[in-house]
Amino acid sequence: MSKEQREALDTLFRNGPLDIGGDPVQQREIFTRMLTSRPLPEDVVLTPGGLGEVPVLEVGIDGVTPEGTLLWFHGGFYVFGSARTSAGLASNVARRTRTRVILVDYRLAPEHPFPAAPDDALTAYRALLGETRSGDPARIAVVGESAGAGLAGALLARACEQNLPMPAAGVLFSPYADLTLSGASMTTRIAVDPSFTPDAIAVRAKDYTGAADPADPLISPVFANLRGLPPLLIQVGSNELLLDDAVRLAARAAADDVPVTLEVTPGVPHLFQAFAAMLDEGEAALRRVTEFLHAAFTTADVEPNG
Amino acid sequence: MSKEQREALDTLFRNGPLDIGGDPVQQREIFTRMLTSRPLPEDVVLTPGGLGEVPVLEVGIDGVTPEGTLLWFHGGFYVFGSARTSAGLASNVARRTRTRVILVDYRLAPEHPFPAAPDDALTAYRALLGETRSGDPARIAVVGESAGAGLAGALLARACEQNLPMPAAGVLFSPYADLTLSGASMTTRIAVDPSFTPDAIAVRAKDYTGAADPADPLISPVFANLRGLPPLLIQVGSNELLLDDAVRLAARAAADDVPVTLEVTPGVPHLFQAFAAMLDEGEAALRRVTEFLHAAFTTADVEPNG
Repeated sequence: MSKEQREALDTLFRNGPLDIGGDPVQQREIFTRMLTSRPLPEDVVLTPGGLGEVPVLEVGIDGVTPEGTLLWFHGGFYVFGSARTSAGLASNVARRTRTRVILVDYRLAPEHPFPAAPDDALTAYRALLGETRSGDPARIAVVGESAGAGLAGALLARACEQNLPMPAAGVLFSPYADLTLSGASMTTRIAVDPSFTPDAIAVRAKDYTGAADPADPLISPVFANLRGLPPLLIQVGSNELLLDDAVRLAARAAADDVPVTLEVTPGVPHLFQAFAAMLDEGEAALRRVTEFLHAAFTTADVEPNG
Repeated sequence: MSKEQREALDTLFRNGPLDIGGDPVQQREIFTRMLTSRPLPEDVVLTPGGLGEVPVLEVGIDGVTPEGTLLWFHGGFYVFGSARTSAGLASNVARRTRTRVILVDYRLAPEHPFPAAPDDALTAYRALLGETRSGDPARIAVVGESAGAGLAGALLARACEQNLPMPAAGVLFSPYADLTLSGASMTTRIAVDPSFTPDAIAVRAKDYTGAADPADPLISPVFANLRGLPPLLIQVGSNELLLDDAVRLAARAAADDVPVTLEVTPGVPHLFQAFAAMLDEGEAALRRVTEFLHAAFTTADVEPNG
């Protein structure tokens, strides 16, 4: 579609100050500064809170009565980021889908390695299900970006195994879903991924997994049993080291009889949806997210027992 | 969604008279009878014709001025079927998308093994591009079912290699895209596929490939270079031996930077879209096909040079 737009975005990423494999505390600051430098739209209302003692940030749109809840997990390789760093994209999606978003501040590595993040995710999900205001699973979707999308996948698999009610849907943006880093794209996409290198990712993967096996399905949902999960929408760009994480997670879901839609957008980088304002492909992807969530919430209303 | 609907369809397939691996001439008759037993809606107009000496059947909807053309390849393992056997589904899609469909009667094996089918497909596509009425590639999509979807994929790869203009999109229903029959689902899905057995498919694959290598990318587009192809929508049910043909074709497209959407619908058989009238999942799938083609034609109008 938009060759100039794609090139501008690529340049932006290549010249950014972030060093993913660098000192975690320093890089965490840079990551946060990059993702929060632009002010949020004036109608976005952020409300700090908690779900089962896990800190969260609620995102509402002024004047919109939410028709559903998105439980949202931010990206950052389990080391960077926070609820606040996802507020830009999350508020955009909240406005389009007429939902409130609950951004989860799960604990980060290396201070809190695995299983802190999935434990926090499960605690938050359980607490959300218990809420009178928005605990109806037919009105909940789980959303994640990058590491947060891998975490969302792991949460769904674990919650399903524990016989918790499933939400209406899952939306996974560029999931980081294989911490053994075995995807073919981890080598074939080195030249075109403007954001990451395999070495940098490997540093951060080690921070998170610690002594655990990176092939643990709670760490790497490409190896999880996904049977019983709700409809999943997985979006990914082809200029990503993580392309095959998305492709293989979709293949795993298909093999486990999960309704799954995989959308691959060529020529765009990791989390291109966050740049919908300057990139036609990002705008198109978010429109499809909106349609997907609308269909998922509608179907869940009509046929609650699948 | 529709457990009873899915079970009814499964029973229908399991009790059908068709023996895919049987005598080709006998089974061809049964296949045709099965797929043409229901009358077409009264507003469907079938017009026989030709494209570059390849016989075709044009499907129009009375009262609809078509806004685009779908070049459509029927299924039947390259041995069964004809333009007419796809007219039911094709007319349904034509009505939804306000297009005319051109169903291609490519030559069939074993009388005409590979490369007769892809040669006819290319001849028809070249002739269509040369038409003054509907030769604008931005208003053409290539569609296929099963073997016809594999053929459509092979056609697109070959046409791209020959620098022919690409159509606006491709829609592949349950593609039969690996005639080496190496997909994992060829064994893992035996119990749930109500339509096919691996042995029967192997008989028909041999009819078609003859002395050729089944891994030839023109026979098995999962091994083709797909770079340069237009946006693809690939739909498949999870109760299919061919599930992994679809998954791997999507993975191949992703690796080759093709815009690709893979939609996996669990619990439904091969070509469930043909049963949209009795199956909610089929109806939902055709609605997404309509949205996809609408978006593809619109985008191609706006940005013809990609």
